[in-house]
Amino acid sequence: MPASDEQVRTTIESYVRLVGEGTGEEIVALFADDATVEDPVGTDVRRGREQLLEFYVGLGSLKRSARMLDAKVVAGHAAFSFELTIDFGEMAQKITPIDVMTFDDEGRITSMRAYWGASDAVTV
Amino acid sequence: MPASDEQVRTTIESYVRLVGEGTGEEIVALFADDATVEDPVGTDVRRGREQLLEFYVGLGSLKRSARMLDAKVVAGHAAFSFELTIDFGEMAQKITPIDVMTFDDEGRITSMRAYWGASDAVTV
Repeated sequence: MPASDEQVRTTIESYVRLVGEGTGEEIVALFADDATVEDPVGTDVRRGREQLLEFYVGLGSLKRSARMLDAKVVAGHAAFSFELTIDFGEMAQKITPIDVMTFDDEGRITSMRAYWGASDAVTV
Repeated sequence: MPASDEQVRTTIESYVRLVGEGTGEEIVALFADDATVEDPVGTDVRRGREQLLEFYVGLGSLKRSARMLDAKVVAGHAAFSFELTIDFGEMAQKITPIDVMTFDDEGRITSMRAYWGASDAVTV
């Protein structure tokens, strides 16, 4: 049985919360074992726990915050926009992607594709 | 050569404009011949000009308006949210999907998947 929309919504809310304040390990724990991440769309696809951890561990070490802007959940799929603000002291960078995700039956993320371009990453 | 991000942006802006005020034929003219539409995600995929026209011609006959809310374009791909308000006289329905699209080399839409659930369609 596919994940319910409630499970999916819980997972994406946890994802945005942990992207804002969790460790790389905590973020990757939301993914299925062989999950893929393409961030941003058009770059190399990362696959599996090790490659995902490489990607998220750097984020986990930064001072930052994140908040959900708009989330659509339908038929066990999700597309959502969120705002990630990374605090570099002198300046901060704000990135506002739309992420598209698929999920396994337990609500773990099986794929993530992040849509954002240069104009969606601004210095503030 | 894949469509440029400028071509993609022009196409999605035309799409939202025509979803708001164009005919079914005008909307379908933005798509490649064998394009697919899954709206909302989880429903049957429509393929090709005839099936797309069936889908959009009804919309084209309604009194309505649409506006882009947020658009991400990257590597010739697009994800964007927009608001479609359909005026039924006594009441109106407002739908706010996130659409994800791919494009051919000329910037025509090759696939569209619309993410929206019951909570994204409200009576106003």
